[in-house]
Amino acid sequence: MHSFTELTTEFENRFVSALPFPQSPNTLYDPCRYLLQLGGKRVRPVLCLMANELMGDVHEDAWHAAAAIELLHNFTLIHDDIMDKAPLRRGFATIHEKYGMATGILSGDVMSIFAYQQLAYIKQPLTAVLQLFNKTAIEVCEGQQYDMDFEQRDDVSIDEYLHMITLKTSVLLACSLKMGGLLGGATEGNTDRLYSFGKNLGIAFQLQDDYLDAFGHTDKLGKQNGGDIKANKKTYLLLKAITNASAEQKQTIETLLENDDDDKVASMLNMFTTTKADIQCREAVQHYSDLAFKCLEDVAAPSKRKQHLHELASYLLERDK
Amino acid sequence: MHSFTELTTEFENRFVSALPFPQSPNTLYDPCRYLLQLGGKRVRPVLCLMANELMGDVHEDAWHAAAAIELLHNFTLIHDDIMDKAPLRRGFATIHEKYGMATGILSGDVMSIFAYQQLAYIKQPLTAVLQLFNKTAIEVCEGQQYDMDFEQRDDVSIDEYLHMITLKTSVLLACSLKMGGLLGGATEGNTDRLYSFGKNLGIAFQLQDDYLDAFGHTDKLGKQNGGDIKANKKTYLLLKAITNASAEQKQTIETLLENDDDDKVASMLNMFTTTKADIQCREAVQHYSDLAFKCLEDVAAPSKRKQHLHELASYLLERDK
Repeated sequence: MHSFTELTTEFENRFVSALPFPQSPNTLYDPCRYLLQLGGKRVRPVLCLMANELMGDVHEDAWHAAAAIELLHNFTLIHDDIMDKAPLRRGFATIHEKYGMATGILSGDVMSIFAYQQLAYIKQPLTAVLQLFNKTAIEVCEGQQYDMDFEQRDDVSIDEYLHMITLKTSVLLACSLKMGGLLGGATEGNTDRLYSFGKNLGIAFQLQDDYLDAFGHTDKLGKQNGGDIKANKKTYLLLKAITNASAEQKQTIETLLENDDDDKVASMLNMFTTTKADIQCREAVQHYSDLAFKCLEDVAAPSKRKQHLHELASYLLERDK
Repeated sequence: MHSFTELTTEFENRFVSALPFPQSPNTLYDPCRYLLQLGGKRVRPVLCLMANELMGDVHEDAWHAAAAIELLHNFTLIHDDIMDKAPLRRGFATIHEKYGMATGILSGDVMSIFAYQQLAYIKQPLTAVLQLFNKTAIEVCEGQQYDMDFEQRDDVSIDEYLHMITLKTSVLLACSLKMGGLLGGATEGNTDRLYSFGKNLGIAFQLQDDYLDAFGHTDKLGKQNGGDIKANKKTYLLLKAITNASAEQKQTIETLLENDDDDKVASMLNMFTTTKADIQCREAVQHYSDLAFKCLEDVAAPSKRKQHLHELASYLLERDK
């Protein structure tokens, strides 16, 4: 079995150091190479490889599946950054900032097709892998659309929010793990458990991200607290605070959403605490985290083989420690 | 065997009247339905079905391949229209005009994945079909990038132009035909001939489109002559005129490219005629058209079975008659 570091290094060597894009037109492929060489943690491909290794040695096809997943993920980043008008990604200029919007759209498009090119290498079970990949990619698009829709709405419920982050973030982690299992010959029960592990892990991770954006420490994360608050982002914390708030507190929150004063972040954090949204967010992280680890426990594989997945999940959920 | 009209009607019934998109989020899927229900000639899916019928009855999988091709084509239209800032498509508002740019990007993305969802229904030979589809989709992106690159360049050669239109337009026609053949169990030689038939047909069609934009009749096409000239588009006619021009004529053309006078179209048409670019363009249409029909003749199938493909190709290449 291989650790996160070992698998990341091997993935970088096999895939990222020798990207499948041709030289020409370089106006199309340079942006693709640029983004993929900026780094990134490669969590999704490594989850796929680790799930595959639960069943035995890493299968050659799992490397292609891992590459497909990383390409799909980066394709969504390119297009999301255009839609969100984001200037930076991984600390560097986004593709549309650096190369223009048209090239951003087209580089994303072609990257998504190169993801399918990787899948086409897979021998068995190609149809099941392709169906899972399609379903997941469709859901990720739907998640992004819901996220954009929510910006225009004032009545987003907690359930709707959880559904949105499940689609936008969690299903791709779940898919990565399930594909690793499928390519390792895991039974349907076990691939379902791997999928649930990834789904709950993803929800816990996103809720923790919401929490850390508000209450995390600037020095550890390298970014200032309160970015979501400044952007009036409808996070779990804000939606929960509104749900819990008294009429008077609700009025305070609405006033805060409408202003851009210097004390906006501090005042909103105060509302999150007063309404106990902060505690409930931490509880929700714990809840989905527990569910995730329970699913991993239930996968029928030797505990020793699950160790690296367990460590990776723990690492992802304890970033603030 | 079925005619173009019969296959189009059946395709509309099977696929377009019952599109595979779910209801929600309707902000994502309404735009997809909107575009696909605006019509379109459905030439590509019908080419796939006709090629399939060369070998026997239409195979169930060929309907899925045809749907995948039409979805891929419409996905590229959505994104190309954003990149080209086009306000109209099929006479109606483009998706980004009607629903906004972010939704345009995302609707295109999800439509491309639904294309792969159709492919995932295919049983045999899935890998070959998937590889062909990926290769083609990548080439279509490359063609669009070259087209955009050429706008910034003053030294585009005729060969480069032919390469660009091959990628942007022809390979998808070629792919449609080859996929139909593959799913009908055609030999490699025959699928290659079908591919070449589509490729040459596409080049002839695009060159004819260049010619008709300049010299076609307004009343027949429903659009004014000279759109390409007004937009300084580097068409076969313009590139050939520049190649053939004397130093003095070259100067005239360059002056025309820099102005927007009322007589710009008439003066440029005069240059096309004087330099004999118009005759050479018609000759090139004839050349690629001949190559196309020769390839179709060489496909090992009964002439009677090729009749509808022959008619469709003739129809596409004689739009001005």
